[in-house]
Amino acid sequence: ARKNQRDVIFGNRGMSLEEELNQSNLYYLQQQVAVIHKKPVPIQIVQVDYPRRSAAVIKEAYFKQASTTDYNGVYHGYYLDFEAKETRNKTSFPLNNFHEHQINHMKACVRQAGICFTIIKFSITQELFLLPAATLFEYWDQQTHGRKSIPKKIIADSGFAIAYQFQPLIPYLTCVDKLIENLRNVKGAHHE
Amino acid sequence: ARKNQRDVIFGNRGMSLEEELNQSNLYYLQQQVAVIHKKPVPIQIVQVDYPRRSAAVIKEAYFKQASTTDYNGVYHGYYLDFEAKETRNKTSFPLNNFHEHQINHMKACVRQAGICFTIIKFSITQELFLLPAATLFEYWDQQTHGRKSIPKKIIADSGFAIAYQFQPLIPYLTCVDKLIENLRNVKGAHHE
Ligand SMILES: [Mg+2]
Ligand SMILES: [Mg+2]
Repeated sequence: ARKNQRDVIFGNRGMSLEEELNQSNLYYLQQQVAVIHKKPVPIQIVQVDYPRRSAAVIKEAYFKQASTTDYNGVYHGYYLDFEAKETRNKTSFPLNNFHEHQINHMKACVRQAGICFTIIKFSITQELFLLPAATLFEYWDQQTHGRKSIPKKIIADSGFAIAYQFQPLIPYLTCVDKLIENLRNVKGAHHE
Repeated sequence: ARKNQRDVIFGNRGMSLEEELNQSNLYYLQQQVAVIHKKPVPIQIVQVDYPRRSAAVIKEAYFKQASTTDYNGVYHGYYLDFEAKETRNKTSFPLNNFHEHQINHMKACVRQAGICFTIIKFSITQELFLLPAATLFEYWDQQTHGRKSIPKKIIADSGFAIAYQFQPLIPYLTCVDKLIENLRNVKGAHHE
């Protein structure tokens, strides 16, 4: 495989998709383009110590299953809600990367006219795509009697390739613009 | 003071505002009215143990300052973002209940056409109000040379009283409808 341009130019091979997105969201925030945040990991706290003269220390806690997605926020009056997922697979994205409750959450958001999608990174080739929720739902709903993954070709055809750039590192809002445009053409304008 | 009707009918005096709102949001979610969640408290994790055959245990962690507000989500295509605050004050709401970064976050969301507000509970009288962000910003921005609290009368006049009911316990989306209506009349329709 040819060397990915982004490795050469931006040299961020070590960053996780989440770090790359957090950095991109910070840029969007500072430029007043959008307000998108990663939600904190939900924790079940069992025991907290309150030492004198210093900060409370959590001494026992457990990770809880998240009931929603990784990221949400607001962009031009639109509610955005998305998951970020990395895979080392080369030709498809396995559906077992998702939990049922994440899909249900995204379906509920779409019912409220939120804009939902997944940002998928094929980490071996450093390829990035924005996959609209509709395609994910279609594959998710057929998986018990059908295939358990989404072919990369489908992701490329029904989604949008995102090229890494300097700032923001992952310019995914450009794809969100196209996604919103497509949704407007299909459903008629919801927004002005 | 006369006994609040809600104490008599619904008898939830022991619940915190947060619990009341979480319960209301669950109702809205189940009825497919809106998708609004409390964000998890952000935690700085320092040490995690991974015992064999059982769940990972967080052994040392600290509370981090939240950089956003308590609640956000989507309702009829609108991005909602709000803080929930209780006070034992009787005649005004002290501005030191807010951190600068929460105000900045709400200002950034409003710039993106998000709908921002605070739900304020005067706990002594069990009175609830939805206060639009614009009024909060106005008082916040004048506080260095002006008063350090928002009079309850202003909250009642520029905001909306919310009466507790059976389900949802706090029917705040009814007030959000009015708030959206007011914003549309002022600015011209952003949606539809
Ligand atoms: Mg993720
Ligand atoms: Mg609060």
